[in-house]
This record gives sequence, structure tokens and C-alpha cells, in this order.
Amino acid sequence: MKGLFITFEGIDGSGKTTQIKLLADFLVKKGHNVVVTREPGGTPIGDKIRDILLDPSNRGMSVRAETLLFEASRAEIVDKVIRPALGEGKVVICDRFFDSTIAYQGTARGLGADKILDLSLWATDGLVPDITFLLSADRSLCGIRLKTRKKTPDRIEFEEDGFKKKLQDGYIELAGSFPGRIVVVNGEQEIKTIFEIIKNRIKELL
Amino acid sequence: MKGLFITFEGIDGSGKTTQIKLLADFLVKKGHNVVVTREPGGTPIGDKIRDILLDPSNRGMSVRAETLLFEASRAEIVDKVIRPALGEGKVVICDRFFDSTIAYQGTARGLGADKILDLSLWATDGLVPDITFLLSADRSLCGIRLKTRKKTPDRIEFEEDGFKKKLQDGYIELAGSFPGRIVVVNGEQEIKTIFEIIKNRIKELL
Repeated sequence: MKGLFITFEGIDGSGKTTQIKLLADFLVKKGHNVVVTREPGGTPIGDKIRDILLDPSNRGMSVRAETLLFEASRAEIVDKVIRPALGEGKVVICDRFFDSTIAYQGTARGLGADKILDLSLWATDGLVPDITFLLSADRSLCGIRLKTRKKTPDRIEFEEDGFKKKLQDGYIELAGSFPGRIVVVNGEQEIKTIFEIIKNRIKELL
Repeated sequence: MKGLFITFEGIDGSGKTTQIKLLADFLVKKGHNVVVTREPGGTPIGDKIRDILLDPSNRGMSVRAETLLFEASRAEIVDKVIRPALGEGKVVICDRFFDSTIAYQGTARGLGADKILDLSLWATDGLVPDITFLLSADRSLCGIRLKTRKKTPDRIEFEEDGFKKKLQDGYIELAGSFPGRIVVVNGEQEIKTIFEIIKNRIKELL
């Protein structure tokens, strides 16, 4: 029995959390064993790494160090959570995975998308998501959504708009490189409409 | 003005700390600007990573996560400490560098020495030590030296003797691959004798 590995990508405020919740509820009701997790973090060691990555006092961290911390958290969650769950036939939904690192550090921060893909495949020991939903949404809309959350922005949310533009370009480029795996969904539509698209793609896979 | 980058390697208890102190004192007396640092750690972010790596409660961490954490700490110290210091013509002495990761995670833990060298060169953005002193010493002697320190063993010192054997083999193999850079010194000799050997090699380089 082989599980299903689903990831969600998109800039902060693009609606990933809402859609993940809807999808998990739907799958549980259909009788699936579902594991929902997130990156960075999702394991005791990964959570400690997450604290370092998101701490605003760590601004100025070298881009390579940042990248390697994301990959370390990823290696741990793959080894301890994702691969074992897939081995038991579960559905794993992960909020961000290596496409985030490719778009953020590879494209937007300039380390190179191909290099980060190689590094990520080494960190995951070859594990690739079965399907990835990329929620695309206008940057200013995402900004408004974030503000309504009223939480303190973390280290990465501090980035200026020019960075977010590069990031979005990175995601779109990535979707072009993996058309079979990455499904781009217009995240500016109604929540229900977006979910219908996601649900239909998942039904095809199950 | 180009600085000099010196690293020390060897299993715990092989005498690295003593020799680093002697060498730093000698170079300072000769009028050099000397920076002494250690891995993992040596930067605020690196110290947080070090805490994760050495915490005994994190035993069971995946080998890839462990490796990536060492590389993250390394990327940060190279970017923030080592490369700037070398750029100012300083002598940098580092207690452990990427040869440790090659020997520990590459050879002893089986991830492959070549792969870890590649990963390390990416993390350091191509920076390689000018000279590396590998202090070789019998494992049981190192064990006795460690016991006299009376500190709690950290996560890595918990390893059994079979692992230390593999580790030492990894170091020796590595020295064979880089005969121009890695100088193997018999660490079972008198402290003064070892230091004479190190001092003479450094004098040639300065």
C-alpha cells in the first residue's frame, strides 16, 4: 500500500492554510488516514530549526546557512514523519516543501533553482511529492490577508515587495518545469471554487 | 593581503585544543592577527545550531539532517567570520572544519565522502583550508583523555567504539586524498614534539 504525498505552495497569504484544512477534512470524511504537517518544522528538531529560521533577530543570516537549515528540517521530517506515514498508506499533506526553497533561495535569492533542487533531492533521499498545488495570488492581496492576521511578521515576511515579485516569478518558472506534478490554481477565486479544483484533482489520484 | 586558514582535525581527545592554543599564542607573539574559532558554532546562529547538534536528547536525528545542520553552521561562520578575517590578512585557526563532516557523516555514517565534500564546498562557497593538521591518536588513549575532563558526554561522544574505528579510518582515507593540504601528526607524542612539527609547517607557509 502506497500513500499519497500532497504539498501546497504559494507566498504567505495565498490561502494555503484554508485549503489544507478543507482538503484534510474532506479526506478524513472519506475514510483516509491523513497526516497534516508543515515546513520548516513538524518534528521536535525541525521546530528548533524553525525557531532559528523565523526569529527576526537572525536577519542577516547567510543565504546558504538559511538554505541548509531548511534542508535539515526537511531531511528530518521526511525521515521521521513523511516516509513512515506514506509507507503505512497514509495521505500526507505538507504546507510547503522543497519548491519553497527552490523559489525563495534558488530563484529569489539567486542561489540557482537547479542547484537547490539537487540539494533538496539529497536531503529527502529522493522523495518528491505526488502532487503540488501552487496557489497564485496577487502580492498586494496576500499582503492584505496577512495584515488581517494581526501577528508580528517573521523574518521572511519582512522582505520588501521586490523580493516577493522575484519569489512569485520563481514559483511560476518552477511550475513550468514540472507541469505533471505542479498544479497552478488561481488563489484569488472564491475559497469554494479553489477547493473544487483541488478536490477534483485529488479524486483522480486516489 | 591574503590571510592563512588553518584547521585542526582528529577524534575527541586527540589533543586539538592544546595545540590550537599553543599555535595561537605563538602566532600572536610573532605579531599576527589571529582568529581562533570552532565548529559547529562560532557565530550566534551557529551556536544555536551547535546546541541542537550536541543535545543528547536529540539522539536519533536523521544523518542527513545532522549533516545539513553542520553545513549550515559552516556556511554561516565562513560568511560572517572566516572569509572576512582572511580578507583582512588575518590567520584563522578553526577547531574542526569540513573534514570532520566528511569523516563522520561521509565515511563513518555511510553517506559517502565524495558527496559530503561536494556539499561542503557548496556550503563554504568554495573555501578550502590552506593547511589542515590531523592529530591521530589511539582511540582508547583519546577515551582516557576525555574521561579526565569529567564533563557529560555529548551526543556524538556517546558513540560506541566501532564507530570511532570507522571514523579514524575515514580520517586516514581523507588524508590520503589530500596529501598536499592534510598533514597527519602522531598525536601520541609529547605535546612539545607535536607542536614543533606544527610550528615548522606553519613557518614554511608564512
